[in-house]
Amino acid sequence: MRASNYLFSTLRNSPTDAVVVSHQLMIRAGMIRQVSKGLYTWLPTGIKVLRKAEKIVREEMQNAGALEVLMPGVQPSELWMETGRWQKYGPELLRLKDRHDRDYCLGPTHEEVITDLARNELTSYKQLPLNFFQIQTKFRDEVRPRFGVMRSREFLMKDAYSFHANQGSLQETYDVMHQAYCNVFDRIGLDYRPVRADTGSIGGAFSHEFHVLAESGEDDIAFSDSSDFAANIELAEAIEAKTVADPATQDMEEVFTPNCKTIQQVADFLKLPVEKTVKTMLVKGLDENGKATIMALVLRGDHSINEIKVEKLAGALTPFEFAEESDIINAVGCGLGSIGPIGLKEKGIQVIVDRSAAVISDFCAGANKDDYHYIGINWSKDCPNFEVADIRNVVEGDPSPDGQGHIVIKRGIEVGHIFQLGQQYAESMNASVLDENGKSQIMWMGCYGIGVTRVVAAAIEQNYDDKGIVWPESIAPYDVAIVAMNYDKSEEVRAVCDALYADLNKAGVDVLLDDRKERPGVKFADCELLGIPHRIVVGDKGLANGTLEYKHRRSGESEDIPSADVLQTLQSKMNKNA
Amino acid sequence: MRASNYLFSTLRNSPTDAVVVSHQLMIRAGMIRQVSKGLYTWLPTGIKVLRKAEKIVREEMQNAGALEVLMPGVQPSELWMETGRWQKYGPELLRLKDRHDRDYCLGPTHEEVITDLARNELTSYKQLPLNFFQIQTKFRDEVRPRFGVMRSREFLMKDAYSFHANQGSLQETYDVMHQAYCNVFDRIGLDYRPVRADTGSIGGAFSHEFHVLAESGEDDIAFSDSSDFAANIELAEAIEAKTVADPATQDMEEVFTPNCKTIQQVADFLKLPVEKTVKTMLVKGLDENGKATIMALVLRGDHSINEIKVEKLAGALTPFEFAEESDIINAVGCGLGSIGPIGLKEKGIQVIVDRSAAVISDFCAGANKDDYHYIGINWSKDCPNFEVADIRNVVEGDPSPDGQGHIVIKRGIEVGHIFQLGQQYAESMNASVLDENGKSQIMWMGCYGIGVTRVVAAAIEQNYDDKGIVWPESIAPYDVAIVAMNYDKSEEVRAVCDALYADLNKAGVDVLLDDRKERPGVKFADCELLGIPHRIVVGDKGLANGTLEYKHRRSGESEDIPSADVLQTLQSKMNKNA
Repeated sequence: MRASNYLFSTLRNSPTDAVVVSHQLMIRAGMIRQVSKGLYTWLPTGIKVLRKAEKIVREEMQNAGALEVLMPGVQPSELWMETGRWQKYGPELLRLKDRHDRDYCLGPTHEEVITDLARNELTSYKQLPLNFFQIQTKFRDEVRPRFGVMRSREFLMKDAYSFHANQGSLQETYDVMHQAYCNVFDRIGLDYRPVRADTGSIGGAFSHEFHVLAESGEDDIAFSDSSDFAANIELAEAIEAKTVADPATQDMEEVFTPNCKTIQQVADFLKLPVEKTVKTMLVKGLDENGKATIMALVLRGDHSINEIKVEKLAGALTPFEFAEESDIINAVGCGLGSIGPIGLKEKGIQVIVDRSAAVISDFCAGANKDDYHYIGINWSKDCPNFEVADIRNVVEGDPSPDGQGHIVIKRGIEVGHIFQLGQQYAESMNASVLDENGKSQIMWMGCYGIGVTRVVAAAIEQNYDDKGIVWPESIAPYDVAIVAMNYDKSEEVRAVCDALYADLNKAGVDVLLDDRKERPGVKFADCELLGIPHRIVVGDKGLANGTLEYKHRRSGESEDIPSADVLQTLQSKMNKNA
Repeated sequence: MRASNYLFSTLRNSPTDAVVVSHQLMIRAGMIRQVSKGLYTWLPTGIKVLRKAEKIVREEMQNAGALEVLMPGVQPSELWMETGRWQKYGPELLRLKDRHDRDYCLGPTHEEVITDLARNELTSYKQLPLNFFQIQTKFRDEVRPRFGVMRSREFLMKDAYSFHANQGSLQETYDVMHQAYCNVFDRIGLDYRPVRADTGSIGGAFSHEFHVLAESGEDDIAFSDSSDFAANIELAEAIEAKTVADPATQDMEEVFTPNCKTIQQVADFLKLPVEKTVKTMLVKGLDENGKATIMALVLRGDHSINEIKVEKLAGALTPFEFAEESDIINAVGCGLGSIGPIGLKEKGIQVIVDRSAAVISDFCAGANKDDYHYIGINWSKDCPNFEVADIRNVVEGDPSPDGQGHIVIKRGIEVGHIFQLGQQYAESMNASVLDENGKSQIMWMGCYGIGVTRVVAAAIEQNYDDKGIVWPESIAPYDVAIVAMNYDKSEEVRAVCDALYADLNKAGVDVLLDDRKERPGVKFADCELLGIPHRIVVGDKGLANGTLEYKHRRSGESEDIPSADVLQTLQSKMNKNA
């Protein structure tokens, strides 16, 4: 590509509404422009990167034996009604009507359409397993689109769906997909982790997320510092090293705690370590019999509630929500800041205590009376009726659930997610095949997604400096930039540039020849902002000595190379860094 | 690809609702399945073809200097309001509301979005010309989706938009695109014609359609039999060789024509050639002053009205519609079958006579009295007050408008369309740049579309036989099929197949190894239905003689080739037929 025929659209300054680095740099480097909230146009530099990422994803899916298909983006409501998701899916599902007033949605995911295909086309276990993938623009009507294309409403996604005669076959394909995803992210050159994850609204029994590690990530990932354990914090089990509480040394006593609304204020006021306090939350919902019920959750003062764990508790209120102040006053007779576990059971409120809160002694809690707390509480003496469960988020330093080392927490950007869906979709849509004995049996399913758009943004979050993007070579918009000095004036510069440009193109190298009438500073800045891995400067000064200047974007190292060797040198550098 | 891991989904019989060959064969060959009216899933065999067509289109656009971009499929209404198309565009534009009740549409075309981009990013004439293209799924809410993916609601389209400082530059890029389109269709191997066309709802001054010639085409294309003149019949000028009518030899006379409702019935009843009759149509609409008006259009009995020509007449009623029976009775005092031009002018009705109808003599027309016609009419004597215009469709045998030869009419499938939009979009959206003198000036635009989806269907309409599809090699789902006989039982067959499969894959050949446990007849039928250009049969019988059977799908010719030469033979055959 000749820069004189190209659209750069580079900006010296970041737009004020861009808060994460990838968003800032994608705007500044002329990769994307917003058309409407969460809807972007990809400019020439952007789409080149996106297409390279797409190609890697497609090739690795094909290498893993998956078959490409393409389903419609607009999906009929009838299929979503069969699985019940037409009702259950929230406003992220954009519903619309066609000219004949029939209901459709813009597909955020395609389980229904592919299961419909499978039940129509697959008749025998002999056809299985099969794994279908597509690379398609999806739409999710995010309530708060943000971070540029990281959380946009329209985005390019690779989604795949596998069909199996039994769970063992599903596990095999799941493992193949796990490896294929590692291959994709390895090839792109990302620092990522596969982590155990919650299955969310897609459903199913077992899943892994693939996270690119970056400060701007929206997810917290819990790792072991001494093993390969990794899980989304939503899912990581909190292990309590102690099994029983220390013996009681104090007696419970009521104390006046005026104006202490938070647990930290209470601890400060009473000069107690926050680890010697508990906080009690009341949640409300319907119990198993459909009766409106309130339940108390108790955590150590320094811990935070994990709502997903609470939802999964046997006998928990589903769905639950936090009780409002009026509910609390009704139930225990005080406001938000003074709730405590003492006496709740006697009022008919079930008390669930987190493992770590259950092993402290001589602690402090609200007295269920405004502006009063108890100190010197001990469970066995003062509040013996409760159940223990894991309901908190892990924190750094917790023992790793696999028994090896301790928890470290990092932020991650979710770029992939694989699920074992089991039989739920196939069951609700009656997708079955005949088994070895000629008997009809519901198929098992897996599903596997990669946010191709988000991979591009995540790659930037891991690869930038103060000059701009530093692309991994795999997805750089161009492999090589030739920066020409006085291209319009110097016949020799022009001849050398044109020859090198032709040679590189012929060798299949993606090359940008900057032949613009711009100052060198502008050209260098654009080249660095765009993150082109290898740069050659062609100028009369160097040519007089028979040399060209080579500069490596990532290392910043530059050297003069004999102009006769330039093609060979570039090729060896590209191989070395690939 | 190994057939044992593939999804064929081939059918022996055509679905009853498929009326055109491409629709029938795409269903039968397992290329597509309907999900909802006009919405299809592309199965593995289908998407392979679509992706190959897409690749050719992308490469030729890049070769022509166009820059790839990707705009959102969901577009905000605000942009469409700027051009007025939010109101003007009919129900083909699927309008929808997001969760915040804001108006959007599913993009059927992207003039507004790209013009918005251009006005934001382009500031100087020095940046021009620029030509942006995207390959994207479009949505048009067709009133009557039909013919499979030929007229579906969702389809893959390449659309491009160019920006220019002046009309001359637009013409240059238009010519480059014209050539690029020829390159695309040549590379795919289609029999096509570029034809002059109407600009329709996109607007603009000048356009060409690219038509693939096929019986099932929805458009009539008029060609010269002795020059390269070609135009959509909507646009082809009807030339009348005669300049004046023959002299009158009869006097006008009223005759009773009971139960004659059509012009053919009248001609038969009166034993007159239909070329000696005229038919008169009343149309209604608003005149230039906004007054409801009726106008009469007169054609020779054997000709048909061209509504687009009528719409373009100076002073014509826009938009016009055909008068209803009640309007006709009101205006002339008779029903549909008996209208004629005599006396209409006197009743205040303007009479427009087609060129060919204006040069006949001693002819017959309705008498404006039910069940009566006049015979022996001559314009000069009997009806001198009328205007002459070209308002009919050309017919075969008409003189070619370029003066060379005569018109031949063939049916075509529109697969591409290029337009010179001029300044209308840029004007309404105020997309300007600074010119050489630092003065702001509105840009000139072109737009260029290829229906990638429809190209696939059109290729089939031109390439099939009674056994199935006969793909052009450029877009065949596989280049070569290896049909293995007793793959599961014969160790030698397996070894030869596996080695050949590996060699072909390594050579970059797209190969399908049919290793299924199916009867040979089933495998041959699938291979022919899928239209794979080259087939190798590997069986014990041939191997005993050291040969494999080669068969060419298009010619049907087969030969035994020494197994040692198979790779070389295949490669030379692929090159020869490429």
